[in-house]
Amino acid sequence: MAVCAFLSKRFPLVRGRFCSKAPGLARTVVRKLWCASSRSQLRGVEGNRGLTGKVDRFGGVTVDLTDTGLPEDISEGAFSGLLRESLVRWRAEGKVAVWLRVPISLSRCAAAASTHGFTFHHAKHDRAVLVLWLGEGESQLPGFATHQVGVAGAVVDESNGKVLVVQDRNKTTNAWKFPGGLSDPGENIGATAVREVFEETGVRSEFRSLLSVRQQHNHPGAFGMSDMYMICRLRPLTYDINFCTRECLRCEWLDLAELTRTSDTTPITARIARLLLHGLERGFGEIDLSMEEIPAIYSGRFYQLYHRQLPSLVTHI
Amino acid sequence: MAVCAFLSKRFPLVRGRFCSKAPGLARTVVRKLWCASSRSQLRGVEGNRGLTGKVDRFGGVTVDLTDTGLPEDISEGAFSGLLRESLVRWRAEGKVAVWLRVPISLSRCAAAASTHGFTFHHAKHDRAVLVLWLGEGESQLPGFATHQVGVAGAVVDESNGKVLVVQDRNKTTNAWKFPGGLSDPGENIGATAVREVFEETGVRSEFRSLLSVRQQHNHPGAFGMSDMYMICRLRPLTYDINFCTRECLRCEWLDLAELTRTSDTTPITARIARLLLHGLERGFGEIDLSMEEIPAIYSGRFYQLYHRQLPSLVTHI
Repeated sequence: MAVCAFLSKRFPLVRGRFCSKAPGLARTVVRKLWCASSRSQLRGVEGNRGLTGKVDRFGGVTVDLTDTGLPEDISEGAFSGLLRESLVRWRAEGKVAVWLRVPISLSRCAAAASTHGFTFHHAKHDRAVLVLWLGEGESQLPGFATHQVGVAGAVVDESNGKVLVVQDRNKTTNAWKFPGGLSDPGENIGATAVREVFEETGVRSEFRSLLSVRQQHNHPGAFGMSDMYMICRLRPLTYDINFCTRECLRCEWLDLAELTRTSDTTPITARIARLLLHGLERGFGEIDLSMEEIPAIYSGRFYQLYHRQLPSLVTHI
Repeated sequence: MAVCAFLSKRFPLVRGRFCSKAPGLARTVVRKLWCASSRSQLRGVEGNRGLTGKVDRFGGVTVDLTDTGLPEDISEGAFSGLLRESLVRWRAEGKVAVWLRVPISLSRCAAAASTHGFTFHHAKHDRAVLVLWLGEGESQLPGFATHQVGVAGAVVDESNGKVLVVQDRNKTTNAWKFPGGLSDPGENIGATAVREVFEETGVRSEFRSLLSVRQQHNHPGAFGMSDMYMICRLRPLTYDINFCTRECLRCEWLDLAELTRTSDTTPITARIARLLLHGLERGFGEIDLSMEEIPAIYSGRFYQLYHRQLPSLVTHI
């Protein structure tokens, strides 16, 4: 599930199972993230022989090779033997999955694990996580992040109906588009839009609303993953253009009506330009998705929710 | 950049550089994805001694260990020596980055590479990708996917003002919420909503609109990554509930007005319930983000764009 109660990102997960209520799904299995409400639900440390792992409430075992006291120079063969012995025990105990957390310095253990069927789940910086499904049928374990998030900022000068657009330097065909770029990990989309607009154009602005969302799969430049592209409406705080010449060929305040008519733009920019022109003429309230801060139940933090701002919502808050 | 022209997901990337036009950014460097328009821009294969790599237009080198003819049993020491020699050459040539594609069976080469400063960029299935930044300053290379995407489906029965809600079996506190779950790689959000609703509740439905988007960072259950949560409005095609008892404790068609009043729900569900009630009373046109199919410039495929459907847009299409 997307909204769940995991309190630790190191907690092993088992996502879903076959659901008897969905008999018509031939190839689509029911995949769910079973959420643990607390790390305290880890049932302790086990292991007399072989590797030592932590058992989670879903019947999975996690072994962190930094915690096992393995010699730094353990050979692939020695580790393979340890793992083989452990797997026999875990299978006998009915465990459904094994997670291996492998520091990059012990990567040879990943090679050894692959001979027992382990594959990479993900890897970041100096750590890889491998996984082996021991349960019935195909793996029901949750995958890793699937999307990158790109954000564009449409900075509209309401005083003269112009919008800030750029042309990339590195494209074979030049077309007007809104400045933007990839969201950094942990960065809110509004902050990405404001940052990217400033970095590309030198114009400072502030977030006003989310306008549009686009999902694209197998996105070029996303290492085979998907791309979620968000277009935000921004209000300019400064107007002088001082664009990044290494990235942009051109940068201008362009008349919105002209941007809706020109063929010298991308389909998505043309579509958003029409939205913006409508907003300029009839009020941005007709096109905006407003942002609200809402408290997260479990973490104590806040998140941002974007949707239509309605009069009835305002009175209910 | 989020919309770029990569034609190959295996293409090595260099993301951005310091931009002279952003002098005020003390810690924030200008990070951009420099996009190649074609694999044909690879400048060929090099390497007389040491490792053989492909050079990209950004000054990066990619070495795929499956293509190098390395012996399967190459030792960490032997690989480290090869890599050392190659790094000396690449540095002398002014290369800015080295990407290493390492099959899991050769994982010991990742350990060897780590002694030269390489870290994991990402890993999937039977392959890890490591990277080393050789350029000036901090790494300007693009990261891997940062978000998972969760989707909920709010199935509204317009004939009686009821909406389909569930309570999870595995939560410590039970609260009404819309059924939903994680989007599979390559799956459109509308398809995720319809699939998840059916799997959890047995109710078949069809996608009508996107209602709301929520971003949350360090999301529990997302292996430390972020979560983008989308709520879709669905129209029921069947009405009989046959819910998945392993996942859900309860499942009901609940009166929307009642859902806006009860405290037995989550903040996000309460907020969406108020949106939906407004839509039910005044027309869903006031709250919907419609989906449009738009052709992608480079891939020849289509993508979905979600935003406000305006009369002026309809006439312009």
